[in-house]
Amino acid sequence: MSDLLERLRAGLPPEALITDPDVTASYAHDMASFCEAGTPAVVVLPRTVEQVQHVMRTATALRVPVVPQGARTGLSGAANASDGCIVLSLVKMDRILEISPVDRIAVVEPGVVNAVLSRAVNEHGLYYPPDPSSWETCTIGGNIGTASGGLCCVKYGVTAEYVLGLEVVLADGRLLTTGRRTAKGVAGYDLTRLFVGSEGSLGIVVKAVLALKPQPPQQLVLAAEFPSAAAACDAVCRIMERGHTPSLLELMDRTTVRAVNAMASMGLPETTEALLLCAFDTPDPLADLAAVGALCTAAGATEVVPADNAAESELLLQARRMSLTALETVKPATMIDDVCVPRSQLGAMLAGTAAIAEEYDLTIGVCAHAGDGNTHPVVCFDHHDPDESRRARESFDAIMALGLELGGTITGEHGVGVLKKEWLARELGETGVELQRGIKAAFDPLGLLNPGKLF
Amino acid sequence: MSDLLERLRAGLPPEALITDPDVTASYAHDMASFCEAGTPAVVVLPRTVEQVQHVMRTATALRVPVVPQGARTGLSGAANASDGCIVLSLVKMDRILEISPVDRIAVVEPGVVNAVLSRAVNEHGLYYPPDPSSWETCTIGGNIGTASGGLCCVKYGVTAEYVLGLEVVLADGRLLTTGRRTAKGVAGYDLTRLFVGSEGSLGIVVKAVLALKPQPPQQLVLAAEFPSAAAACDAVCRIMERGHTPSLLELMDRTTVRAVNAMASMGLPETTEALLLCAFDTPDPLADLAAVGALCTAAGATEVVPADNAAESELLLQARRMSLTALETVKPATMIDDVCVPRSQLGAMLAGTAAIAEEYDLTIGVCAHAGDGNTHPVVCFDHHDPDESRRARESFDAIMALGLELGGTITGEHGVGVLKKEWLARELGETGVELQRGIKAAFDPLGLLNPGKLF
Repeated sequence: MSDLLERLRAGLPPEALITDPDVTASYAHDMASFCEAGTPAVVVLPRTVEQVQHVMRTATALRVPVVPQGARTGLSGAANASDGCIVLSLVKMDRILEISPVDRIAVVEPGVVNAVLSRAVNEHGLYYPPDPSSWETCTIGGNIGTASGGLCCVKYGVTAEYVLGLEVVLADGRLLTTGRRTAKGVAGYDLTRLFVGSEGSLGIVVKAVLALKPQPPQQLVLAAEFPSAAAACDAVCRIMERGHTPSLLELMDRTTVRAVNAMASMGLPETTEALLLCAFDTPDPLADLAAVGALCTAAGATEVVPADNAAESELLLQARRMSLTALETVKPATMIDDVCVPRSQLGAMLAGTAAIAEEYDLTIGVCAHAGDGNTHPVVCFDHHDPDESRRARESFDAIMALGLELGGTITGEHGVGVLKKEWLARELGETGVELQRGIKAAFDPLGLLNPGKLF
Repeated sequence: MSDLLERLRAGLPPEALITDPDVTASYAHDMASFCEAGTPAVVVLPRTVEQVQHVMRTATALRVPVVPQGARTGLSGAANASDGCIVLSLVKMDRILEISPVDRIAVVEPGVVNAVLSRAVNEHGLYYPPDPSSWETCTIGGNIGTASGGLCCVKYGVTAEYVLGLEVVLADGRLLTTGRRTAKGVAGYDLTRLFVGSEGSLGIVVKAVLALKPQPPQQLVLAAEFPSAAAACDAVCRIMERGHTPSLLELMDRTTVRAVNAMASMGLPETTEALLLCAFDTPDPLADLAAVGALCTAAGATEVVPADNAAESELLLQARRMSLTALETVKPATMIDDVCVPRSQLGAMLAGTAAIAEEYDLTIGVCAHAGDGNTHPVVCFDHHDPDESRRARESFDAIMALGLELGGTITGEHGVGVLKKEWLARELGETGVELQRGIKAAFDPLGLLNPGKLF
């Protein structure tokens, strides 16, 4: 231990090392509930690539595990410490190195906050779409590690689609450059994409080349009330089947609507069984909203209200963005699921989730990136009640089983971490896991990078 | 050898095996010039997954190399046979298994021809964008193996962005399922993307889930003539910097324009130094073309001609599509490069290519997916002339060196195969190649899949 600190100090300035256990404890876990977390030996906050290399060389020499971290806003425990590990926090490497409107790229360090990048590129008429709900605090490095999504994905896709190239410090301290800064490139296996979503288990991302889009027109939002979740899901299918490309298409169930109203008096319609939000950032959003409104009505919507202006639209989005937080106030504890199904199965997924809630006698609120088929069932329970806790965990698992049964995945955007390890093996199968382990071994033969995550 | 045939016959119908050397010779290579190709022991044309598994189990048992093939339209020798190999042609597995307008996916076997899929999804109001110039004959499996591009990429991206999930027969015959049929998913390392562009070196793709887009409006094309390649490249930068999203943005240099006219009397302007084609498939393409036309004029265009209708637009695209073929008529032989640079460096790339042509005293015609910075310099030479052949090869290499120097990649969309093996190592560096080999070993420990390609 003292050997570890001494060696680390040899290549790091004093302020880059935290050893006070009261402080290091605050780096022990991300925002996932009910995930095991160990006690770090030390927290390191490097500012340069060389310092990261020094940390990894030291870790390899002493065989100490390393847990890389961004802002710890993750929801699967992927950033949780293991006992005696080095927590490697990248938040101080937070420079935007380049923004090029001609090449439509940004080059950033991993600690840049998502919202800071988004605003910076906006000033150049550019747009960085990925917008996880933690976008005001989460970092690009964390977004890359978890391949995070957000509201934009139905039109603009996930983080993975915006990472063109990376610089990565490997487990042994060597520096690897992957990918490109060009629009296209097929030189060898796509190592860049392999790192996206790898939860820090293959290397430490120290620089990223990100693709940008031109800034679209301001989006306008429509809200539609439905007498049942099934009718809302039917509307989603009609909208997508007709070839519309909304910039978001979100669903909040009755429990979620009421929770949001209770928390923030948003004035959402309490009598609705399902609220659908649909937006367009097209040249003529009002025309697109009118077409979608008609489809909603045909699917049984009882009320269709297009926002008159950007301010009203923003208010509706705020309501959606606070859904998870609001559902956390329903009961003392929550477990947030992240099952994504083919959108044709969204209705079956919501009906099945309601049946699970009834079977386990629990409140399960659902908000969903409906256009993507990506649902967030939030199991609300009292963790002081052992029986309710057991039922909560069982229902959480039942929801994932249902998702797989419907042709979906256990995680649309939150990742695996420690929360869903067993379920990853079920989704991938034996051969899939074996190959994933083979890749891990090729990058990190000593198993030092974020051990115990994924598989 | 007889053992090999006997074992193969045990699990394959007679018509799935070709041993006649005159016929198997025709499977020895793809469309790349000047790439080594061996003599296959046998050509196998399976129709089912089980038959592919039988081939791979046999190959593993007898340690026989396997070279997977689509339509052999590749341009880097990635499908070239090695001596004594099994050529595994997937062209008979050509069923479209599913098209879902709600989920916006198609599920296909690898032998489906790109154009067949494109037309089939069009009938459902859907669009499969990747459109390599061989699209009327090339297969989806080949497109996946080479991660191929096309004219659409500036707006719609490359093949990689449309592959959601795969079924793959591994070297030892086991069946692996990767990815998903959902819009999103982050369960484990992205094995799907790893297979895209892997040139058959990691496994045999036997099924693919492809993402589809809604069919856009018919595109309209504008042609702009420039007094210099530099002015045309300046226009490209202005168009992209202003936030336009053309559905294609192509450049043909003077040599290319004249070659196309000579071959097909297309009536392209012979006096131009560079012809730019720009198209929009937006709701109001004429307005977008007018804006882009003004930018072209500002950049020095001497003539700007928007096509009046779809037929005129199609004619311009035909001219562009026949560029490579036309350049092949300039001299007895050609070598086609595929360097992609950041689009801000496109002007430097074209100027440098012209300087290389002068230095080596050769004709090098350039057509380019200009919006992507992806150039296809075509070195025209007489392969009966040893000195000219040497100069051709040297200039081909000089072009790749220039691309790397300008921050680009040696291959934007044609792949590495055997043609650019040495250059892949230069682009990736020692650490990069080592990790690529590590991945290869994890999937194919005996090195039986398409040996001698990539690295």
